[in-house]
Amino acid sequence: MAARMAAIAPFQVMEVQRRAFELEAQGRCIIHMEIGQPDFSAPPQVVEAAVAAIRNRSLEYTGALGLPALREAIAAYYGERFGVDVSPSRIMVTAGGSGALLTLMGALLDEGDEVLLPDPSYPCTRHFVPMFGGTARMLPVDAATRYQPSCEQIVAAWGPKTRGLVLASPSNPTGTMVNAAELGRIAAAVAERRGFLIVDEIYQGLVYGQPASTALAATQDCLVINSFSKYFGMTGWRLGWFVAPEACVREMERFAQNAFICASVPAQYAALAAFRPDTLAILEARREEFERRRDFIVPALRALGFIVPVMPEGAFYVYADCSRFTADSRTFALQLLEEAGVAATPGIDFGRHAAARHIRFAYTRGMEELQEGMERLAKFLSRF
Amino acid sequence: MAARMAAIAPFQVMEVQRRAFELEAQGRCIIHMEIGQPDFSAPPQVVEAAVAAIRNRSLEYTGALGLPALREAIAAYYGERFGVDVSPSRIMVTAGGSGALLTLMGALLDEGDEVLLPDPSYPCTRHFVPMFGGTARMLPVDAATRYQPSCEQIVAAWGPKTRGLVLASPSNPTGTMVNAAELGRIAAAVAERRGFLIVDEIYQGLVYGQPASTALAATQDCLVINSFSKYFGMTGWRLGWFVAPEACVREMERFAQNAFICASVPAQYAALAAFRPDTLAILEARREEFERRRDFIVPALRALGFIVPVMPEGAFYVYADCSRFTADSRTFALQLLEEAGVAATPGIDFGRHAAARHIRFAYTRGMEELQEGMERLAKFLSRF
Repeated sequence: MAARMAAIAPFQVMEVQRRAFELEAQGRCIIHMEIGQPDFSAPPQVVEAAVAAIRNRSLEYTGALGLPALREAIAAYYGERFGVDVSPSRIMVTAGGSGALLTLMGALLDEGDEVLLPDPSYPCTRHFVPMFGGTARMLPVDAATRYQPSCEQIVAAWGPKTRGLVLASPSNPTGTMVNAAELGRIAAAVAERRGFLIVDEIYQGLVYGQPASTALAATQDCLVINSFSKYFGMTGWRLGWFVAPEACVREMERFAQNAFICASVPAQYAALAAFRPDTLAILEARREEFERRRDFIVPALRALGFIVPVMPEGAFYVYADCSRFTADSRTFALQLLEEAGVAATPGIDFGRHAAARHIRFAYTRGMEELQEGMERLAKFLSRF
Repeated sequence: MAARMAAIAPFQVMEVQRRAFELEAQGRCIIHMEIGQPDFSAPPQVVEAAVAAIRNRSLEYTGALGLPALREAIAAYYGERFGVDVSPSRIMVTAGGSGALLTLMGALLDEGDEVLLPDPSYPCTRHFVPMFGGTARMLPVDAATRYQPSCEQIVAAWGPKTRGLVLASPSNPTGTMVNAAELGRIAAAVAERRGFLIVDEIYQGLVYGQPASTALAATQDCLVINSFSKYFGMTGWRLGWFVAPEACVREMERFAQNAFICASVPAQYAALAAFRPDTLAILEARREEFERRRDFIVPALRALGFIVPVMPEGAFYVYADCSRFTADSRTFALQLLEEAGVAATPGIDFGRHAAARHIRFAYTRGMEELQEGMERLAKFLSRF
């Protein structure tokens, strides 16, 4: 095995999920709060677009950049929803957000390059860096900065080997957003250092109490990643995209031609229906449902003794400080699963900073299940 | 951009295809002999399995190894069709053959490692090597060894930095198979050197005049790659698999969890219908059609003055020596496209060895189109 494999930690959420499925196979009832995927599946318009394409089209390879019509639909969405002008020629359709991250890291990173990332952040992001010979340098973030690195922190951490920075807005696992003004400052600081700025907007659209937004409104000096898995409910289809500066699309395309050929074509045709007004109306109703869940679960967790210092603004996660109950959230999560039948993800998945005293709860199940989960949690915690 | 991008050559077939589409958009009629995908799309059983899954299932992420039922179906196929015992636990379902190659190279290669490959061979294979810091060392192969490297050639080329070898059977672009006895010797020599042997069987099943076979019948000391894109007609769906020794599946899974999460789930459910006897009957009829095309096009190309010293045994390509007409097959292919409306892929896509005097013709279009293509070729060549 390659030496890089040592830098790719096991994906705890998958391990938790695997064990949860084993317990279910044994007849146990598990409340799934570990899973980073919506319980809503593809909207009916998307389903029917897929069926029509599968029945009527030969579904050959598309170009590596994706179906021209889909790239145009994505560009139009930036214009109509966010008031941002993005040319379709800057958009590459990818095999999920994963395919976007893989392409960007593969095309940008050289052996020995350093990439700055918030700690905590989405596990795969820091694992893509060593895949291509780089080193992930984690920036510890706290409630004081709403779990987002400040421009000063980034500038202070930027070293001679630093090539770029990856932010996420809304963030997984904390649900917080990057402030637009701060983002503008960060983009300018990164550009001054001739680095790259990637903004992961995979949870774009799943935002509560404020309109959805894009980093592209604050700066065009960045690469933006997105996905059809979360807001659009197309999790298993494996479809996403990124927006890159015009000048590097050709190179990215060459990388993706070799790495993927193209993203799944039935999924690409299905996604053409994702931006229809009647589809977006369904997605907005779902967003409101996620907001109701957030408004239930955050106070409930706080009442149980978890510390949630910042109200999550987006995504569907609560990153809860569980230090009142444990100094080892991995063991805590496993006990919670085995004893109470509640699956949640230990903080260690997302980095090192205060990881052992945090646990992530996803609110990707209906209100009744969440209520049952909170009751089980209350019983489980009574012995602490 | 990363330095590795310099080692990733432009994908000529995609460039030819792009130009062919441009000409078609201008109203020209193009005979497509450049395309490495069957003109047959997914069989109706596969289409209906996909439709049922899309309509009735929530299509969440699967585990990174793929749907258990699909891994079992693939394992059963090895048993029933090839008489080889492969445990489902050794099978990983991937995002096409590309996803399989990416996962294997990513999990196996360290910076500076060398990988041996036949020249000519599938372009992406040699490009996956520098993606992960390795160097592709090309082994020139000729008609004398049916375009496959001999065990002696491999042993002679194996150096201190060599980590492994990738073969393909049937080969793209030459259509030739690896002889089973030779493969056994090669596997033993590679194992003695503690290297890896990857056998690309993406064109498995598309074999003429002999039964389809697998390297796993000759040796279990190898990693085998396969795809639903070719024999199974699911090109755009992006689904494939690989078979690995039990001991390294866990590490490969960890890599794929991070790189892909999982392969497209609608495609995975669709593929469950690919191994049904009634589906296989359709695929066999298609194979016979490809055989008829081969039996037409190889003599036709020879009659036109192309040299095809070895009858291709599989896949759907003819790797033709065009040295009677040109010493620069790239320019020749572009002229052929612009002037005669016949798209074909220059040899340079597949390596360096004698690349400028070879051109690849795919027989992935019906007999009438192939006949028209041969007529256009005859006219085009009359001026040489």
